[in-house]
Amino acid sequence: MKTFNVALLGLGTVGTGVYRIIAEHEADLENKIGSRIAIRKILVRDIAKHRTRVPESLLTTDFAEIVSDPSIDVIVEVMGGTHPAYDYIRQALQANKHVVTANKELLAKHGKELLTLADEQGLQFRFEASVAGGVPIVKALKESLGANRISQVMGIINGTTNYILTRMSNEGVDIETALREAQAQGYAEADPTNDIDGFDAAYKLLILGSIAFGSRLDIEKIYTEGIRKITPIDLEYGRQLGYTLKLLAIAKETPEGIEARVHPTFIPSKHPLAAVSDVFNAIYVEGDAVGELMFYGRGAGQMPTASAVCSDIIDVALNCGTRKVCSCIYEKKQLPMEQTVSRYYVRISVKDNPGVLAKISHEFGENKVSLHSVIQLGRGEPVPLVFVTHEVTEANLNQAINGIKSLDCVYSVDNIIRVEGEA
Amino acid sequence: MKTFNVALLGLGTVGTGVYRIIAEHEADLENKIGSRIAIRKILVRDIAKHRTRVPESLLTTDFAEIVSDPSIDVIVEVMGGTHPAYDYIRQALQANKHVVTANKELLAKHGKELLTLADEQGLQFRFEASVAGGVPIVKALKESLGANRISQVMGIINGTTNYILTRMSNEGVDIETALREAQAQGYAEADPTNDIDGFDAAYKLLILGSIAFGSRLDIEKIYTEGIRKITPIDLEYGRQLGYTLKLLAIAKETPEGIEARVHPTFIPSKHPLAAVSDVFNAIYVEGDAVGELMFYGRGAGQMPTASAVCSDIIDVALNCGTRKVCSCIYEKKQLPMEQTVSRYYVRISVKDNPGVLAKISHEFGENKVSLHSVIQLGRGEPVPLVFVTHEVTEANLNQAINGIKSLDCVYSVDNIIRVEGEA
Repeated sequence: MKTFNVALLGLGTVGTGVYRIIAEHEADLENKIGSRIAIRKILVRDIAKHRTRVPESLLTTDFAEIVSDPSIDVIVEVMGGTHPAYDYIRQALQANKHVVTANKELLAKHGKELLTLADEQGLQFRFEASVAGGVPIVKALKESLGANRISQVMGIINGTTNYILTRMSNEGVDIETALREAQAQGYAEADPTNDIDGFDAAYKLLILGSIAFGSRLDIEKIYTEGIRKITPIDLEYGRQLGYTLKLLAIAKETPEGIEARVHPTFIPSKHPLAAVSDVFNAIYVEGDAVGELMFYGRGAGQMPTASAVCSDIIDVALNCGTRKVCSCIYEKKQLPMEQTVSRYYVRISVKDNPGVLAKISHEFGENKVSLHSVIQLGRGEPVPLVFVTHEVTEANLNQAINGIKSLDCVYSVDNIIRVEGEA
Repeated sequence: MKTFNVALLGLGTVGTGVYRIIAEHEADLENKIGSRIAIRKILVRDIAKHRTRVPESLLTTDFAEIVSDPSIDVIVEVMGGTHPAYDYIRQALQANKHVVTANKELLAKHGKELLTLADEQGLQFRFEASVAGGVPIVKALKESLGANRISQVMGIINGTTNYILTRMSNEGVDIETALREAQAQGYAEADPTNDIDGFDAAYKLLILGSIAFGSRLDIEKIYTEGIRKITPIDLEYGRQLGYTLKLLAIAKETPEGIEARVHPTFIPSKHPLAAVSDVFNAIYVEGDAVGELMFYGRGAGQMPTASAVCSDIIDVALNCGTRKVCSCIYEKKQLPMEQTVSRYYVRISVKDNPGVLAKISHEFGENKVSLHSVIQLGRGEPVPLVFVTHEVTEANLNQAINGIKSLDCVYSVDNIIRVEGEA
């Protein structure tokens, strides 16, 4: 029986999971794929730290030992970060080794170069684990939906923020409390910026959108807004309107170009994404032939992520190698946020005077913003008014908001949240 | 540029969809896969009926003309039924042609023989469209979850019955009314037996379970119960208990063997499957590494099904040909229904006497059925009592029910419905 030789770069959480799956499922994998998968080398920083858990003969601190070993078929990068991962993967491809990685940041920043190099070398380069952990969305978009023109991808692809929003929604706590809870549960890091401010979701959206539309997105052009401004009162008002709030990563192809954005979003509570709670991830896709699809599962964690890495290793071993690695065959225009279209929830504090509603409605109308619904929640001074608009460009909405802010009868525009999904 | 030549068997709803996708996406497909996909022949019964829609030169009524044409690379069977589809596919494989099919009944009845023949011939044989239409569950189970031991697959894989149950639940109508509505909408056939009585779901479950567990299921051993006995009052009581009713196809691997069954099932209203309404399909999967996954989308219809067929054609064209076609490598025992384990909802009409509850509880206890909850709904004569059990074998439950039926204080056992998902 042929043996397929793997080198792991990194033996942290995910690396340990990959090691476990390959060890524990050895016979099953042999039966399934007709060859043995063997881990031959593991790159670590400190051998002493790991030798009680894995055979010491596998461990090395020297990447050169791995890349120069002609028996290694595939390099599996699970160290994270861009350096030295970028250099190692480049060298691996130049040394004619296939690559599997779980590294979203690396792909977002250096994906074009690395995937192009893999294609030039005729090598496989797989990255299922880089988006939504165990949810097989990369393969679905690349292969299963190959006969579709994808019109939109909308995802809950950050488990930390989804956990926080679920707590806030279910228990009425504020974001600081929910964040502390998430940190206590191990769902959020001590410095939660990468999750809370949407950067993690943006990296993943870049990968999803690039595959969906066959055109590489630019991370600098992805509008990225986190959940820091979300308050329990907005969640409550949203609920009264039949909405649930999610941090969505959204990519849409319009005749004008591709929209790609990450921001807190109300969706109808009956939308399939609304029921996705806690740390779960889900990606909702629309294709011209297939219609609506949703993929749901654990977007992070040791074993779900390792499951995705191992499915890539199996695919490489099975040598589905004639498929072009890079699916970016077009160069489509990517829209600035101002040109994107959405519906909006706008909460405004106004004076309790007659004629206020007419003045605000006039400002909306002047700027081509038509209204879906208006509700007045309670009385007193100030009075809170909530508007939900029909679809409008961000530019027009912003103009209307500027006009409204300058009205004498308006104290403040307290919140603006985009609304997605069918009305 | 190389051309990949396709012959379609059948030009009904799905065949026409496949033809449309390949014609309309021609340039896109060429860009994606680096070769042309061309439909060279279409087998129809009556050329006159189709020549206004497709070039007459493509149409033939003679299968021999297709199978003997050495330029044809893949046969795409979208005619349905087992005869003559079975003979045609056998001949195609013997003539060294790859096969793509959407035919669940054929696979359920002749899958073993045909897949084995394909492997012997070194040919590809793909059938993504045979289960859940556009939802790419076959590829997910075969490829994406390859590193997992799947413990259970639970699916809403019949759109007709899901539509009927959704109507009944939302509007309180009875099954006859909902069925007439479904027929009027084109979601149910004039003779709805295949859907309503669960046979369609059973064929699909055979395919899913066989892949999930790597062991071929036997259609004769799949317990199949349709939705005819479901009444609005059960749906209402279920709702009061926090349950939603779905026709589920369930396959589980237990230490004792594989459970495979199709029946109406209550699931907690918070379970991801509970939110799947109307004609949508969804498949919920649990793997040891990946945890819980759900795949959701349109399980039928012209273009979703054609999307799946075309993804198979693309895969064949891309020649992912080293993957073994048949994933059934084990021969595991398949359990009879009596040995399967479930929770149960049991509704009983009793006399309004003291001591009734004790007598019924005693019968449950004597047969090792422990109770999760009991509710009395209203008073009068008879009194309806609803029990929900903890997990128990079907055999024990049946014994308990027989004992309860023989009690003097019991008028009738009015309904028994299985409950799945976390309590």
